[in-house]
Amino acid sequence: MVKIKTLEFIDEKLYLIDQRKLPEKVEIFLCETYKDVDFAIKDMVVRGAPAIGVSGVYGVVLGAKEFKHLDKETFLDKMEVVLNILNKSRPTAVNLMWGITKMKELIEKNKEKSTEEIYVLLKEEGDRIKEEDIDINRKMARYGNTLVPEEAIILTHCNAGALATVDYGTALGVIREAHYSNKNIFVYADETRPRLQGGKLTSWELLQEGIPSKVISDSAAATLIRDKKIDLILVGADRIATNGDTANKIGTFMLSVVAKTYNVPFYIVAPTSTIDFNIETGKDIVIEERNSEEITYIEGIRVMPEGVQVYNPAFDVTPEENITAIITEKGIIRPPFKENILKLK
Amino acid sequence: MVKIKTLEFIDEKLYLIDQRKLPEKVEIFLCETYKDVDFAIKDMVVRGAPAIGVSGVYGVVLGAKEFKHLDKETFLDKMEVVLNILNKSRPTAVNLMWGITKMKELIEKNKEKSTEEIYVLLKEEGDRIKEEDIDINRKMARYGNTLVPEEAIILTHCNAGALATVDYGTALGVIREAHYSNKNIFVYADETRPRLQGGKLTSWELLQEGIPSKVISDSAAATLIRDKKIDLILVGADRIATNGDTANKIGTFMLSVVAKTYNVPFYIVAPTSTIDFNIETGKDIVIEERNSEEITYIEGIRVMPEGVQVYNPAFDVTPEENITAIITEKGIIRPPFKENILKLK
Repeated sequence: MVKIKTLEFIDEKLYLIDQRKLPEKVEIFLCETYKDVDFAIKDMVVRGAPAIGVSGVYGVVLGAKEFKHLDKETFLDKMEVVLNILNKSRPTAVNLMWGITKMKELIEKNKEKSTEEIYVLLKEEGDRIKEEDIDINRKMARYGNTLVPEEAIILTHCNAGALATVDYGTALGVIREAHYSNKNIFVYADETRPRLQGGKLTSWELLQEGIPSKVISDSAAATLIRDKKIDLILVGADRIATNGDTANKIGTFMLSVVAKTYNVPFYIVAPTSTIDFNIETGKDIVIEERNSEEITYIEGIRVMPEGVQVYNPAFDVTPEENITAIITEKGIIRPPFKENILKLK
Repeated sequence: MVKIKTLEFIDEKLYLIDQRKLPEKVEIFLCETYKDVDFAIKDMVVRGAPAIGVSGVYGVVLGAKEFKHLDKETFLDKMEVVLNILNKSRPTAVNLMWGITKMKELIEKNKEKSTEEIYVLLKEEGDRIKEEDIDINRKMARYGNTLVPEEAIILTHCNAGALATVDYGTALGVIREAHYSNKNIFVYADETRPRLQGGKLTSWELLQEGIPSKVISDSAAATLIRDKKIDLILVGADRIATNGDTANKIGTFMLSVVAKTYNVPFYIVAPTSTIDFNIETGKDIVIEERNSEEITYIEGIRVMPEGVQVYNPAFDVTPEENITAIITEKGIIRPPFKENILKLK
């Protein structure tokens, strides 16, 4: 059904779809070392919080492969470095820190074992997390689908699809599920400047699935929402604070303000690994600022004047009061978010 | 002070800065016939409601030049065709209809005169409208500047600058005036997808003037507004209904919703020729839908998958309740707009 393989770990190597090349070319980016994975995350070969998380986990596995022939003490020192580097490859998606922490704890717990044994355990844990991600997406999709009416017109932002996860997708997983339950849905995809993940990746996934859709410029969403041409909005998340405040791709917050003003349901679809139980509100979420060339160049061509200054935050924070519900693999969380999120801990 | 000449009519020819080529190249697009002008407006060689209006007026002059050697009756028939074609070259900016109507009335009033005399009258009227546009922009700039505090951080959308008018600009005219009164202002310019007039044209004008500024993606505006990093928003207009509802570049409405939610003053800067006294509300404004290639191609390169469907409205309507005031050459109009706009008639 879903033909897109965002990532695969085969023969001790991580294979990623190179998302910088989509939709023009489907190319594979091969990671043989943890440094390859660090680069792939930084340069957005792979993107989307869950996919980043699983890639980071396999980055740790690749680190262990590289250093398992060293003596135990050196191995553990090296792994410390690997964990630190991968943990910082991108700052906003908490799934990465979640995955790295799991691997760190596993090493800690088994540090008396041989380096080969630790490597095998890490690899098994990586495979488990990967399979679990697919399972989690399927569960979220089924919960989310209960909120989608027949003939629904759905708006989504950025790419929260199979490409943002191991498979199926978060927001786009719900859309897939609704489509395959024959609800006759229609999707508007925000193109999502600056990197156009909506126009490039989401539209590509929707075309592959045969889900009727149109791409719009991000700012065209407002009139559609006001004119009751959108029944619900589904987006992913990069980090959720314990009060429900949600960091996601730049533009999500703007959309949420319009949705709230015109009473259109606004849903976050994200696994519970996206919840950061260490922070109370969105104020504590680090927002990555990316380079100005993402704005001033498109496809390698300069589109704005030389000398122009740019402000380019990659994410924004949607306050919990703008969110109707958060769809997780453990069920649909509704307000009061603080209370209901803490129950999941 | 301002070096940009959006349009000039010299030796019976209309010279336009080719805005499709900016900021990479400053090229002149020469119009020798009214059909050249029709093309230039349709293809956005020239854009911005006031600049379109004056170009249309000179298109009528070029039509008269072409047909003045015919007998009177044929001349008048041909001019009817010229007026109709130019009137429809773009549907949303009312300044075009306003200018064409002025020319139509002039022909009507002088139809007993010789074709040569009519031609001369049309040309004089064109020059008068052109000079008046500059004068009007200066007046708006001075009124608008009274609303700009010292050290103001101003957000603008699209290009409402010298390039959108004959000279100086509407929203950007106010910004110029504030800058030259040494208020130490700072400007955020929305890049304005799909055609990036903010990133290409506004940033170019701001750089030329030495006004400190940064370009942002359209959806980055929301967080800046919420976080009190924007003191006021200034935008132009393509058409204003008599109740104050305002059509402007797609994205203006979305911005206005966020501005209203977070209590940031939202000002329209437009000459009274942008007011359409024939319509009561924004519901009656025709919104131009442009071709999908504006979204799927950038600089001639396809950026989205083959087969993708697109919805690409060029404008949206900001409801009057989201507007703090409308700055015109006759003064600052505040709510109740309906009452105060009708006073101008």
